[in-house]
Amino acid sequence: MSQLTRISISIEDDLIQRFDAISEQQGLPTRSEAVKHLINSALVQYEWSCGDIVAGVVTIIYDHHKVSLVQRLLEVQHNFGDIVICSQHAHLDHDNCMENIIVKGKVERVKELHKTLLAIKGMKHTTLSMTTTGN
Amino acid sequence: MSQLTRISISIEDDLIQRFDAISEQQGLPTRSEAVKHLINSALVQYEWSCGDIVAGVVTIIYDHHKVSLVQRLLEVQHNFGDIVICSQHAHLDHDNCMENIIVKGKVERVKELHKTLLAIKGMKHTTLSMTTTGN
Amino acid sequence: MSQLTRISISIEDDLIQRFDAISEQQGLPTRSEAVKHLINSALVQYEWSCGDIVAGVVTIIYDHHKVSLVQRLLEVQHNFGDIVICSQHAHLDHDNCMENIIVKGKVERVKELHKTLLAIKGMKHTTLSMTTTGN
Amino acid sequence: MSQLTRISISIEDDLIQRFDAISEQQGLPTRSEAVKHLINSALVQYEWSCGDIVAGVVTIIYDHHKVSLVQRLLEVQHNFGDIVICSQHAHLDHDNCMENIIVKGKVERVKELHKTLLAIKGMKHTTLSMTTTGN
Repeated sequence: MSQLTRISISIEDDLIQRFDAISEQQGLPTRSEAVKHLINSALVQYEWSCGDIVAGVVTIIYDHHKVSLVQRLLEVQHNFGDIVICSQHAHLDHDNCMENIIVKGKVERVKELHKTLLAIKGMKHTTLSMTTTGN
Repeated sequence: MSQLTRISISIEDDLIQRFDAISEQQGLPTRSEAVKHLINSALVQYEWSCGDIVAGVVTIIYDHHKVSLVQRLLEVQHNFGDIVICSQHAHLDHDNCMENIIVKGKVERVKELHKTLLAIKGMKHTTLSMTTTGN
Repeated sequence: MSQLTRISISIEDDLIQRFDAISEQQGLPTRSEAVKHLINSALVQYEWSCGDIVAGVVTIIYDHHKVSLVQRLLEVQHNFGDIVICSQHAHLDHDNCMENIIVKGKVERVKELHKTLLAIKGMKHTTLSMTTTGN
Repeated sequence: MSQLTRISISIEDDLIQRFDAISEQQGLPTRSEAVKHLINSALVQYEWSCGDIVAGVVTIIYDHHKVSLVQRLLEVQHNFGDIVICSQHAHLDHDNCMENIIVKGKVERVKELHKTLLAIKGMKHTTLSMTTTGN
C-alpha cells in the first residue's frame, strides 16, 4: 500500500463550499475522499484514452435458448485467453442471462474483444465497463 | 423468444451508405443487427432514466489488505439483498482485487447501493455499468 | 469575484504523482487548476441532475434549403422565450448551417426545449451541451 | 439535398414495440425519424473517434472582470484561425459570460484548441460539444 501525503490547493471559497455540499449529499465521508474519487475517475479515463494496461468488464445480456450464441460466446473468450481472467454467469429470469467477462490487458486488445462480442448475432445488450488495474 | 418482424423506414441515401460503412468496420454482421444494436442501447438508456426495473453491475477495484473495507463491502451487499443477485471476485495481481456485484431491481434502489458503495473509504475505483433485464 | 481559500487534503503518494503527470500533459497550468477543473465538472453534472437553474447550448445542424424546418426553428425559439437568451447562425458550407441556441433556466424547461427541437423533421444532428450559469 | 431511399430491416416484435413507445414519448414524429436520429448520433461519434473533419462548439463560462482571461481568450482564437469560424458572447448576468466558439476542422486540431482553452487560468467551465459538418 502506498503512503498518504498531504497536499494543499488554492480554490475559490464558494466553489469548495458547493463541492462540500454535494459531496455530503452523495455520502462521501470526507473532502479528501471526494477529491480522490474525482482524481481516480480522471485517471481511469486517461488510461483508457492512452492505450495503457487497463481492467474492465464486458457485460452481455442474452436469451440462453439461443444455443449457437452460447457456443460462440465461449469460443470468443478462449480466443482472447490472453486478456480474459474469468467470467461469471447470472440467471436474471427463466429466459435471460447476464454474462460478465473480466479482462485485463492493453486497451486495444480489450476493444478488439468488445468489437468481436458486438458482432455476435442475437444479443440483447453488450456494454463495456472501464476501470483500472489498481496500479 | 419473440418473433421477428420486418419493418421499413425511409432514410437519406448518403446517410444509410455511411452507416453501412461504419457498421462493417465495427464488425456488425448485418444492417438489421446494426440498427438493433442502436435501438437496444437507446432502450437501456431510457429504462435507466425512467426508474424502471433494470439490471446492472457495480465494479469495485480495491486493495484486499484493507481489512475493514472488505468487511464493509460484504455488509453492504447483505443490506441490499433485495437487489443483489450475486458477486464475483477476481484477483488482478498480488494486491489488487476486482469485485463485481450483479444487481436487478428498481433504478433508485440500484443507485442507492452505488452511493453506499462510493462512500466506503479507500477504494481505488467504483463504477456502475447499466444494462437491461432483457424484458 | 469570490475569495481564494487554501484547503489541504490527504491523498496517496502514487495517486497524486500520476495525477500531476496527466495534468501537465493536458496543459493544465497548476495542480490547483487541475483539481478545480474536476470540481467544476462535478458541480455542473450535479446541477443538471438536480433540476437547478442551468445554462446550456443546443446545437443544430441542418440544410437551410429546407424552408419549413427554418420556420419551425424560429417558432420554437419564440415559444421558449423565457429561457432562450439568443441564438447564433454559422454557415458551415454551401448547404449546411449550424444554429446555436443559448439558454438559461430550469433544467426541465431546457430539456423540454431540447425535446421539441428533436421532434423537428429533417435535422442532421441536434445536441445539448450542459454548462453552468457561473453562480 | 440527398434522395430518400426505403430500407427494410428485420427486428424482434417486442423490441420495435418498445422503441415506438419511447420514440412517441420523446416527441419524435415518425419511426423513420427516430431511427435516423440514432444513426446520426452514431455517425457523429464515429467521425470524432476517427479523426475526420468535424464541426463543434467550445463553450466557456467566465467572469468578465478577469481582464487577462478575456485577452487570452481572444489571442487563442486568433491562433486557431484555421478552424475557428466565429464566436458568440452572451451575458448570463452581471458577472458571468458565456462564450461559444464555433469550429470546423480536423478532430486533432479541434482537440488542441480545447486543450489550449482548458489551460487558461480562472474559467468556471469549459466544454466541447461534438457535432457534424453535415456532409
